Amino acid sequence: MSENQRVAQQPKKPRVPRAAAKRSEAAATSGGNGQTRRRPFYNRPRKSTGKNQKEKRGQSAIPMHIIPLGGLGEVGKNITVYECQGDRLIVDCGLVFPDSDMFGIDLVIPDFTYVVQNKDSIKGVVITHGHEDHIGALPYLLKQVNLPIYATKLTIGLIKNKLEEHGLLGRTKLVEITPRHKFKLGCFTVEPIHVNHSIPDAVALAIECPAGIVIQTGDFKIDYTPLSDGPTDLATIAEYGKKGVLALLSDSTNAERPGFTATEHKVAQSFANLFRQADKQRIIIATFASNIYRVQQIIDLAVENGRKVAVSGRSMANNTKMALELGYLHAPDNVLIELDQINKYPPEKVVLITTGSQGEPLSALSRMASASHRNVRVGPGDFIIISATPIPGNEKMVTKVVNGLLRLGAQVIYESMYDVHVSGHACQEEQKLILTLANPQYFLPVHGEYKQLKKHAMTAESLGIPAKNIHIAEVGQDIILSTNELKTGESVPAGAVMVDGLGVGDVGNVVLRDRRHLSEDGLVIVVATVDSATGEVVAGPDLVSRGFVYVRESEELMEEARRLVSQCLDRCTEEHVRDWNSVKTRVRETLSSYIYRKTKRSPMILPVLMEV
Amino acid sequence: MSENQRVAQQPKKPRVPRAAAKRSEAAATSGGNGQTRRRPFYNRPRKSTGKNQKEKRGQSAIPMHIIPLGGLGEVGKNITVYECQGDRLIVDCGLVFPDSDMFGIDLVIPDFTYVVQNKDSIKGVVITHGHEDHIGALPYLLKQVNLPIYATKLTIGLIKNKLEEHGLLGRTKLVEITPRHKFKLGCFTVEPIHVNHSIPDAVALAIECPAGIVIQTGDFKIDYTPLSDGPTDLATIAEYGKKGVLALLSDSTNAERPGFTATEHKVAQSFANLFRQADKQRIIIATFASNIYRVQQIIDLAVENGRKVAVSGRSMANNTKMALELGYLHAPDNVLIELDQINKYPPEKVVLITTGSQGEPLSALSRMASASHRNVRVGPGDFIIISATPIPGNEKMVTKVVNGLLRLGAQVIYESMYDVHVSGHACQEEQKLILTLANPQYFLPVHGEYKQLKKHAMTAESLGIPAKNIHIAEVGQDIILSTNELKTGESVPAGAVMVDGLGVGDVGNVVLRDRRHLSEDGLVIVVATVDSATGEVVAGPDLVSRGFVYVRESEELMEEARRLVSQCLDRCTEEHVRDWNSVKTRVRETLSSYIYRKTKRSPMILPVLMEV
Repeated sequence: MSENQRVAQQPKKPRVPRAAAKRSEAAATSGGNGQTRRRPFYNRPRKSTGKNQKEKRGQSAIPMHIIPLGGLGEVGKNITVYECQGDRLIVDCGLVFPDSDMFGIDLVIPDFTYVVQNKDSIKGVVITHGHEDHIGALPYLLKQVNLPIYATKLTIGLIKNKLEEHGLLGRTKLVEITPRHKFKLGCFTVEPIHVNHSIPDAVALAIECPAGIVIQTGDFKIDYTPLSDGPTDLATIAEYGKKGVLALLSDSTNAERPGFTATEHKVAQSFANLFRQADKQRIIIATFASNIYRVQQIIDLAVENGRKVAVSGRSMANNTKMALELGYLHAPDNVLIELDQINKYPPEKVVLITTGSQGEPLSALSRMASASHRNVRVGPGDFIIISATPIPGNEKMVTKVVNGLLRLGAQVIYESMYDVHVSGHACQEEQKLILTLANPQYFLPVHGEYKQLKKHAMTAESLGIPAKNIHIAEVGQDIILSTNELKTGESVPAGAVMVDGLGVGDVGNVVLRDRRHLSEDGLVIVVATVDSATGEVVAGPDLVSRGFVYVRESEELMEEARRLVSQCLDRCTEEHVRDWNSVKTRVRETLSSYIYRKTKRSPMILPVLMEV
Repeated sequence: MSENQRVAQQPKKPRVPRAAAKRSEAAATSGGNGQTRRRPFYNRPRKSTGKNQKEKRGQSAIPMHIIPLGGLGEVGKNITVYECQGDRLIVDCGLVFPDSDMFGIDLVIPDFTYVVQNKDSIKGVVITHGHEDHIGALPYLLKQVNLPIYATKLTIGLIKNKLEEHGLLGRTKLVEITPRHKFKLGCFTVEPIHVNHSIPDAVALAIECPAGIVIQTGDFKIDYTPLSDGPTDLATIAEYGKKGVLALLSDSTNAERPGFTATEHKVAQSFANLFRQADKQRIIIATFASNIYRVQQIIDLAVENGRKVAVSGRSMANNTKMALELGYLHAPDNVLIELDQINKYPPEKVVLITTGSQGEPLSALSRMASASHRNVRVGPGDFIIISATPIPGNEKMVTKVVNGLLRLGAQVIYESMYDVHVSGHACQEEQKLILTLANPQYFLPVHGEYKQLKKHAMTAESLGIPAKNIHIAEVGQDIILSTNELKTGESVPAGAVMVDGLGVGDVGNVVLRDRRHLSEDGLVIVVATVDSATGEVVAGPDLVSRGFVYVRESEELMEEARRLVSQCLDRCTEEHVRDWNSVKTRVRETLSSYIYRKTKRSPMILPVLMEV
């Protein structure tokens, strides 16, 4: 153990590869984002240390493994396994919502095979914050392996709700962690570091082990004037940077955006203006249920403007209740009212906070837009603010909701009309700041589509980190790190597991392919009963179709199809074809070529033969 | 006729409602976009004319009808019918691409019922420009009604290709029209007015009839420095404005965007920089096949840089060929090469222009990104520019393509990284300019989602057009206009007709609902043969499922389901239930409740009973 600790405290030592590379690259031309690769002088390695390192090169440094099981080349499903000297820990355990081509799938979780295989060595799961893409798959993991969960207070509150739904609460060990308070998991010492994000109680993690220190940012941004809790703890990151960071894993979500993410205070200013503008109208604000900061701002403004506040939408109600109980949300007495009470107040005395900012079809705001909300009738007296940006893929749904609300006569503030939303993620300048402070030997961009990881990698390169020390990892990759080198080992089982209803992983590519086929052209079922002795058709063939054509208007087509199948079956009998699979194939071919010729469609064709 | 002409030439007379409203509104507070409603002095009606108008009020002005059959509350499917004194003409005849919930649908066209009902009075179809959302439904219209088509030269070229595919070319009368050359269709005199857009040969239309003059802009923007053909013919619009315009129908696509759309020249500058940056690399540029201007710019730069140009993608090849033939595209000899020749040149000597800028899965660029293009292998030697903005709904597909190209090692310029694309549509300031020049009595925002129409209406109101003279129309509405009033008559049949393969309109809501159901949970078919005399089951029941579960891993579930169905059928026999529909209902209920309990899924359940 003392040996380990010695090494753990040593990463202060300089890193030759980087220093060397830097010298050779100092004069190189600018990178993709127009930055020269020359490093600012205050951040250049001390010259004297290069030699030191060379001397140590012969020594075999202690390696660690970083194995991302999700969150790379995708937005969501974040989970990373760390391993050093046989001890393992997991950071985050999120889900991802299905792509539009995953028909009927409710959600997608990581493949936990590797975790299950190594369950005895896993000391715990550490969570950075309470968003679904970081905690959503926990119940599915815990059903397979019982592991202790380490998270901050609010995050634990959110996890508890989730575990309760799955009946897992009683048997799961939940450990509350706090920024600046280190805790040990096997050979790992973990320090949570406070970061700004769009949910309170988010942390980055400094993970110290015999191989060195790794910083994983989780989702973060840098807000110098946040609504509470202070800015991202840059000092602690800088301290680790000075001590020596082996690797930085940093949030790439906004890697394509130059500059800085605006402060949450900007939203406060916009809201204040809009409250004035809405004067005699009822105000309805849609935002993310987990954005407690945003909800707090709205409550504060409501109090200032003498309005009552109600919430609509299950997740908004649950989160608000929990945040109030845990002290993350504050409201004077008598400000919050029940949703069914709002019509007792004049419109100018009410603010309604609701879910549905992404246009989700079943959300409260969507129901308002389609005039089907039980308690809320939207009309010209409403001033509606959608305080969110559509997540890629949701644009059309949001547009549909906006159209619906406008048609009802409401005034609607959406998208970039005002600064009613700021991102929760760091833009390029913030990413540079963290890269500079952490000053890592190796950099692994995480959390993002490939294009975002790539851009983040280019940003790092523009700061002087040599390309060979930057690694865009893939899900399942075993990344082996030491002060000597970064290499990859054999990949571990990893990927996406689809959840459909109660089924976890029972819908695979075959089922999805069938669903796609059915969705495009429907199906035609051919049923016939045949005499098992003679092969003669004794009943049918009957044709049943669904999702193919409107049958009443296509009687001729279907009748002709039936006739052709009948002929085909008769011919099989005549030719003594008695292998049912051959008969089915002939029926399928006959029918599909006829249908394609007539309609240019290819429904799924399912022949069912019954023997009597 | 002389009476008609008198009225047609009279709309110079002032309009009381507007003048009056303006006075009362002059002091009103600012509109939604921060503009005061006060009109600039040079555009206010002459004071003396108000009285004049009042005197005439008693007279019954000649009315005209404007009936939009598409293009309102949607982006696409543009078609408008004009009617005056029994004569009708149609402007545009476009299609719209299906929403993601229109499973299996290829494209959507307008409902032509009203056109067919009135075919004898329709003098022709006038086309503003050659984009699919303005010409794409022509073949389907012409199959129902043979009408002459009036369009500019390039537009006719594009229509010809389309008609040829549908075997309609021989029997369709195509009439070439030219800006500044009026033509008559019944009581209508139409003047095409040159406008800038993202395709050459686009026109607005001034439609003069006994009721007055209507200007329909088509799709337009104002580019003071276009690549060719000069800016939008503002003078002619101004001239009509002075003469008196009864109504303006104007493009609302960019109504939410403040400012001006940048000139196409900005793209030229970016391209020039990027060509320099790409120095030793092969350049691949993806853009819209119809954007001949963009293609011309690329050819010009290729010539300057000593590169050859090849095109990839069917529509790109077809359009380029036609534009060269018709003289809309110019290339020196030996610059254009065949696609299969590109590998004979070093990368730095080649530019490839391709389709796929929207990430369309089967497009040339998508095939390059998935390394399945026959002639083009993308790698680190490629510099790829996506010269387009993702159309709402296509963001994820474009991201997928970008990720694929980046993974192959190519450098990719996409989205807002550089000014490699400008919109083809007018932003707010351009919309204001047209509103001001045309100075219409009535304003109808067209071409756009409801939110865009609404915003355009607000812009018009901010310029002093009284709210009651602004009408956000709906598809199928009969808008009756005269200098006295704007009112709506009884709606005409209108809506969306879905095209699936050869079927036009045979897929309706029932079929779509089934396709959606099948796509979400698949189906289970139950087949049994029963004795028609006793009701006893003589074969089966057999269960066949598709898109439900992976059967090999769910044998137990399926076997138990079969057993339950068997029991259910036996019970029906015992209870002498002989109405097959009742039996089927009981089977369906038994099975669906069992399956839902076990899986929380609701596949479609199709019982098929055969009698022997």
